[in-house]
Amino acid sequence: MNKMVPILFIFSLLLSISHASVNDFCVADLKSPNSNSGYPCKSPKEVTVDDFVFSGLVAKDATNTTFGSVLTTAFVNDLPGINGLGISGGRIDLAEGGSIPMHTHAGGSELLIMVEGEITAGFMTSNALYSKTLKPGDVIVFPQGQMHFGVNSGKGKAIAFVAFSSENPGAQLVDLVLFGNPLSSDIVAKTTLLDVAQVMKLKQRFGGRG
Amino acid sequence: MNKMVPILFIFSLLLSISHASVNDFCVADLKSPNSNSGYPCKSPKEVTVDDFVFSGLVAKDATNTTFGSVLTTAFVNDLPGINGLGISGGRIDLAEGGSIPMHTHAGGSELLIMVEGEITAGFMTSNALYSKTLKPGDVIVFPQGQMHFGVNSGKGKAIAFVAFSSENPGAQLVDLVLFGNPLSSDIVAKTTLLDVAQVMKLKQRFGGRG
Amino acid sequence: MNKMVPILFIFSLLLSISHASVNDFCVADLKSPNSNSGYPCKSPKEVTVDDFVFSGLVAKDATNTTFGSVLTTAFVNDLPGINGLGISGGRIDLAEGGSIPMHTHAGGSELLIMVEGEITAGFMTSNALYSKTLKPGDVIVFPQGQMHFGVNSGKGKAIAFVAFSSENPGAQLVDLVLFGNPLSSDIVAKTTLLDVAQVMKLKQRFGGRG
Amino acid sequence: MNKMVPILFIFSLLLSISHASVNDFCVADLKSPNSNSGYPCKSPKEVTVDDFVFSGLVAKDATNTTFGSVLTTAFVNDLPGINGLGISGGRIDLAEGGSIPMHTHAGGSELLIMVEGEITAGFMTSNALYSKTLKPGDVIVFPQGQMHFGVNSGKGKAIAFVAFSSENPGAQLVDLVLFGNPLSSDIVAKTTLLDVAQVMKLKQRFGGRG
Amino acid sequence: MNKMVPILFIFSLLLSISHASVNDFCVADLKSPNSNSGYPCKSPKEVTVDDFVFSGLVAKDATNTTFGSVLTTAFVNDLPGINGLGISGGRIDLAEGGSIPMHTHAGGSELLIMVEGEITAGFMTSNALYSKTLKPGDVIVFPQGQMHFGVNSGKGKAIAFVAFSSENPGAQLVDLVLFGNPLSSDIVAKTTLLDVAQVMKLKQRFGGRG
Amino acid sequence: MNKMVPILFIFSLLLSISHASVNDFCVADLKSPNSNSGYPCKSPKEVTVDDFVFSGLVAKDATNTTFGSVLTTAFVNDLPGINGLGISGGRIDLAEGGSIPMHTHAGGSELLIMVEGEITAGFMTSNALYSKTLKPGDVIVFPQGQMHFGVNSGKGKAIAFVAFSSENPGAQLVDLVLFGNPLSSDIVAKTTLLDVAQVMKLKQRFGGRG
Repeated sequence: MNKMVPILFIFSLLLSISHASVNDFCVADLKSPNSNSGYPCKSPKEVTVDDFVFSGLVAKDATNTTFGSVLTTAFVNDLPGINGLGISGGRIDLAEGGSIPMHTHAGGSELLIMVEGEITAGFMTSNALYSKTLKPGDVIVFPQGQMHFGVNSGKGKAIAFVAFSSENPGAQLVDLVLFGNPLSSDIVAKTTLLDVAQVMKLKQRFGGRG
Repeated sequence: MNKMVPILFIFSLLLSISHASVNDFCVADLKSPNSNSGYPCKSPKEVTVDDFVFSGLVAKDATNTTFGSVLTTAFVNDLPGINGLGISGGRIDLAEGGSIPMHTHAGGSELLIMVEGEITAGFMTSNALYSKTLKPGDVIVFPQGQMHFGVNSGKGKAIAFVAFSSENPGAQLVDLVLFGNPLSSDIVAKTTLLDVAQVMKLKQRFGGRG
Repeated sequence: MNKMVPILFIFSLLLSISHASVNDFCVADLKSPNSNSGYPCKSPKEVTVDDFVFSGLVAKDATNTTFGSVLTTAFVNDLPGINGLGISGGRIDLAEGGSIPMHTHAGGSELLIMVEGEITAGFMTSNALYSKTLKPGDVIVFPQGQMHFGVNSGKGKAIAFVAFSSENPGAQLVDLVLFGNPLSSDIVAKTTLLDVAQVMKLKQRFGGRG
Repeated sequence: MNKMVPILFIFSLLLSISHASVNDFCVADLKSPNSNSGYPCKSPKEVTVDDFVFSGLVAKDATNTTFGSVLTTAFVNDLPGINGLGISGGRIDLAEGGSIPMHTHAGGSELLIMVEGEITAGFMTSNALYSKTLKPGDVIVFPQGQMHFGVNSGKGKAIAFVAFSSENPGAQLVDLVLFGNPLSSDIVAKTTLLDVAQVMKLKQRFGGRG
Repeated sequence: MNKMVPILFIFSLLLSISHASVNDFCVADLKSPNSNSGYPCKSPKEVTVDDFVFSGLVAKDATNTTFGSVLTTAFVNDLPGINGLGISGGRIDLAEGGSIPMHTHAGGSELLIMVEGEITAGFMTSNALYSKTLKPGDVIVFPQGQMHFGVNSGKGKAIAFVAFSSENPGAQLVDLVLFGNPLSSDIVAKTTLLDVAQVMKLKQRFGGRG
Repeated sequence: MNKMVPILFIFSLLLSISHASVNDFCVADLKSPNSNSGYPCKSPKEVTVDDFVFSGLVAKDATNTTFGSVLTTAFVNDLPGINGLGISGGRIDLAEGGSIPMHTHAGGSELLIMVEGEITAGFMTSNALYSKTLKPGDVIVFPQGQMHFGVNSGKGKAIAFVAFSSENPGAQLVDLVLFGNPLSSDIVAKTTLLDVAQVMKLKQRFGGRG
């Protein structure tokens, strides 16, 4: 083992830098402020395997929810080891008859892998619809920022895993964005051509004032 | 002038590469297929100043349009010299009482510079509204992928210039996305909680079937 | 419905660009040469929902394979709609006693979601090991370029879904890289300190000459 | 309204992450140190619409300035909401006979939109000139890092708005870079072939010693 | 060797994709048009080790050149294997008394490694000078887009190797940009405050008309 | 010199921003935590030329080391001025008969410039070998994440300079990754098909337990 001295010497410069600057990964220090490139790196000495593992993508009961669906996330706040890696995951549980409400992800594209049941899902651009009924083993992609949806079109519950091209893809639910804030019903109506009565009805449902 | 021979010799290697590989810019060859990094570069020999200039950001009459607004763009198809540069522009003309309909840009952030009149504009996240009444000389930014809008809240017409952090930012108009395609009214209603009658009414207006 | 004329006028410039330049997505034209930003975009007129759906992440029999494992991919060549989106997927089937051989992905990070059985998996840097025994619902991340592995440490088969932060993450299997090509056994031995006899034995197994 | 409980439950995981990690935007905390990806994000609780609005792109008097021009900026220090968004803006006021001095932006490309008057503007590569006389409604682009200029070639003042593909594009004015610092006149002369007397004259004008 | 069948089966999907889509590298097909992400990839079947090797960074005679310097490049046109890799190299030979003329690289940062002799080199921002006399073994960096220079401040010739953070960094030589094209001497003088006579003198030397 | 007042006024807005936000460069504040975009920027007032210069790429004695080689680095921890610039450097000294052990760089591509002696170097993908014997003046590139090696195939020592497309490219040495940590010899053997005895032998040499 006395050969270890020279080998440590050989790579000492390289490895000491490697240690000091955490170049192999950058586990999120979630207590520090976020930035455009993610959270600052936790000190490598404090990193353990548990920073790279999240144990929560398990079944959830989606009945008795407004849309009959639950999304469980493995985003950077759940799994700090993905900080800066441009990847995250999640699990969708849909009750029978449930749906995934219309929404976009401003921060990344989404890959949905069907595990159980049947979901009719798709996305729309300003001039086209791309929609299909999915069975287990099917994969569908929703490009970044495109409005997409899903409905449980089968019998019984449906399960899917999802992955995103960002550790923090965000989510803009069309109902919350339009009806969950104090923007006046008049302005919402004028800029969508929805009827004012419809806007006021949904503002009641989604918590918006105005 | 015989000093030119040596200087050409000095930089000949560098410059010949510079010429051949168009590293100073990459003007779009709009006839070739697009890619994730924009259009292929036009041959530098065919590039002229007109590839870098667009002369169309002039006044448009916005009365007698559905929303009372016209957007004129200087995107890569109008101005091939911005290919790959991550910048584009436009001009918005709003008639009195007109509005900018609710929409997102999946591909970039937007900067709006007020030139004339008064616009009340803003954007909404899933839990907040950021809105303000703007006067000439005011600038507002709409972050990438966030739903935003504007209404002419003053007297007379309003004019603004806009810039985007992409040469091809795209646009997802909530009305066209929800009501301008063949997605069934039932699915739209189920995934937005809009009334079916409202969905069918707007599908008529925005050209959607189903 | 004569209101449609003005609205088409309003957004005509914007939308015509949107159509022409495919800014909402860039489905791979797999017949054209690849590039550093992925494949050129297919003409939007030829795009269908099937470009965004892949139906192959189904069970495979992993017994009677060298490592007792099968990886099924949903990379850009399987799913052209992910071109340029920085995301892809896959499914791993491990026979009882099987393993995922040591490898790296030069092009992206990997997220592994456990579905069935038990896998002990991890990655190593030049000075640390991050390894854990995973159960269904657990997620683990392997940062880009780090050597990682998995072994079926439970009874019966094991199943996992994987996602990558690239539509084309590549794979460098340490056995194929070291023993599957004509690099001379002497050089392999000298630059790894493996015994020459060991190198020659594995070159036989993995098809390398030299 | 008791339906609000389930919907809050449905998206609670997603939204709580959205809140905590500010993924919708990252307003600059200008009091913290800058980084390669911009400033750290301000706490979302402290963000208001005024972080996204700047009210200063108004007329400035450019007479009695060395070049007869004033640039007013809307960069990240003026408009913290553009942090990380890759966009910024500005306004140029040129007095009659004024000019925009030769300069480059190392950090981004520039789009100039003519509003009033006439500017002859352009950029030069090591082997070409791209220059044009611009009227209101014209747009010109200066690719990143290319030397560009403008002269008021009309009667009366000229006004333009500008946008950059960076929230912090920088500016390298050839006069300040060559003549505004302590680099010895001999070295400037030797590496530009300008006459030493010319260098010394301009060093006097632009504050350089040496 | 009959174990090879299963192993080929195991990774067949993965590897066939790896082959088809050239994800390990993207050697430039220099005959195709360039793009913002570099050249399209050469077919992997046509790639040889010579695509990754360039044999030209050898000594050049820099005497009898205008600045007493020669730059030899290993850019993408010389070394197609660096396409898309964000790295390139070069060699600088300076005759005694020679200099590296003032220039910028719009496309990348530069690292200069001193090999022989002595060079005084540096760069300037709009308000500072960073300059030092370098000996063999010294390394200096010039950040992207910053004006930099070098003079042989020792006895005898000087040699350095350079590397760039781009396979195609470009070069904007201040003399060629200001004096090597048809921009009128009046405009050059007005936008730099150089004397017209000086401009005309250097236009003669660097080939500019106007 | 009274002309300085107006010129300071002209560019005062631009320059004050330029100063405050350090947009010309971002020298690493090595005492602050690292991030995915590098270290936070040092205050510009504290920056000196020495932040951009490193004086350590000098000869090292590589005899009496395990592989007969020494790598000296100019990474961000040595040269804080390269922070965020995507470039770094190094020097390799090979004793006669020495070698560069098999390794990858997860974080960047490498350019190797031969200075003295002869090195046979190359890299391997999962299905190909690219290898060549290099002489002074030759340049070879190793694409990001690909396994590469070198052997001194000449007489006497060999010297090369290297550059990387990252200021912090990392290094994964196959021996340290496989044999330098507590991963059990059984798992290493099972996931590489190396003999257990071979694994244990090398674990002794490279410090691994298990």
